[in-house]
Amino acid sequence: MEEKDISQAVISRLPRYFRYLGELRDEGIQRISSRELSELMHVTASQIRQDFNNFGGFGQQGYGYNVEYLYDEIGKILGLDSSHSMIIIGAGNLGQALVNYMNFRNRGFYFTAAFDINPAIIGQKIGDVPILSMDELPEYIRIHETDIAVLTVPKQEAKEIAKTLVGGRIRAIWNFAHIDLPVPPEIQVENVHLSDSLMKLSYNIRRAGNKE
Amino acid sequence: MEEKDISQAVISRLPRYFRYLGELRDEGIQRISSRELSELMHVTASQIRQDFNNFGGFGQQGYGYNVEYLYDEIGKILGLDSSHSMIIIGAGNLGQALVNYMNFRNRGFYFTAAFDINPAIIGQKIGDVPILSMDELPEYIRIHETDIAVLTVPKQEAKEIAKTLVGGRIRAIWNFAHIDLPVPPEIQVENVHLSDSLMKLSYNIRRAGNKE
Repeated sequence: MEEKDISQAVISRLPRYFRYLGELRDEGIQRISSRELSELMHVTASQIRQDFNNFGGFGQQGYGYNVEYLYDEIGKILGLDSSHSMIIIGAGNLGQALVNYMNFRNRGFYFTAAFDINPAIIGQKIGDVPILSMDELPEYIRIHETDIAVLTVPKQEAKEIAKTLVGGRIRAIWNFAHIDLPVPPEIQVENVHLSDSLMKLSYNIRRAGNKE
Repeated sequence: MEEKDISQAVISRLPRYFRYLGELRDEGIQRISSRELSELMHVTASQIRQDFNNFGGFGQQGYGYNVEYLYDEIGKILGLDSSHSMIIIGAGNLGQALVNYMNFRNRGFYFTAAFDINPAIIGQKIGDVPILSMDELPEYIRIHETDIAVLTVPKQEAKEIAKTLVGGRIRAIWNFAHIDLPVPPEIQVENVHLSDSLMKLSYNIRRAGNKE
């Protein structure tokens, strides 16, 4: 399929389409019009058509989209037709929560190792994922090709670790540390800045006039 | 200060300005031009000026912004000059990670209670935050005015709990469940859909051609 150069705003909306289409599919619904999808998702039908046109439109005829086909195609665009190996750096509560989150594994994202500096947990496992010493990280990522390194360490440590990661066979960093990482453009970065999200909520509370 | 009706895109960028200005302030830097801030943050100076103009411009003269003043003003806009009470619903790994995350408390976001259905942890504490039974939730939020309910439960349970929350004295929901919550517009919602973020990363890995 020909893909135009697609904005990150469009990309950001794809997982939500994928999620809704998965639910429709699970409910046994076979076809849906952009108007119906629009009502379900609370976005305009024209937004949906514009978004899908970036990928050739997915062939809506007068009678709507084929749900299963659309779900599969968006899954492929999102790269979910191949599996992704991951390591997690920082095996605290957040790290353990992410490793234990079964939805990721169901989508083909699987953890091969966790790394931490805490001697009390090094050598233990999270499920079947071994917790290794942070000292082993450089060697590990030199040997093991890894798609995604998940960074759940304090921001003071994140920059140093990012430098280590850049030296290894890592394609992407999923960054939960509250800094912007200085990495070269060939390494993909997606930030989850929880504090930023919470501040946005705080702003919206104040604006709603509920809070003075 | 007069505030225009401000887009969520601008709001989304405010926490990042706040974070960088906090770091500059901590480094003892007193003034910064939009050009310098632009280089530091990798956004255009014109974007910065446009964003700030939404709030009256913060009075940049020829010699730049006053860092401390700008930090304080953006903090106020974000509602960080008042504290926010929070409860967490779902005291698993993710819930515990959020309760333990000191950065939130440093910004005035403090947890008063956690709720779970697991009898093994009900009655225990996360730090000094008591874990109560989910059965106690309706009564709790009827009595205790709460700014933010944090939802870290599986999506199957999230909809029911959202209905309970709507009946209580809750201003906002910080939603980690992987569904869009059906709540009335007077309740502010901010979603953290981790799977969506991971899929976006997966897309960018594939597009970068690193992964075939």
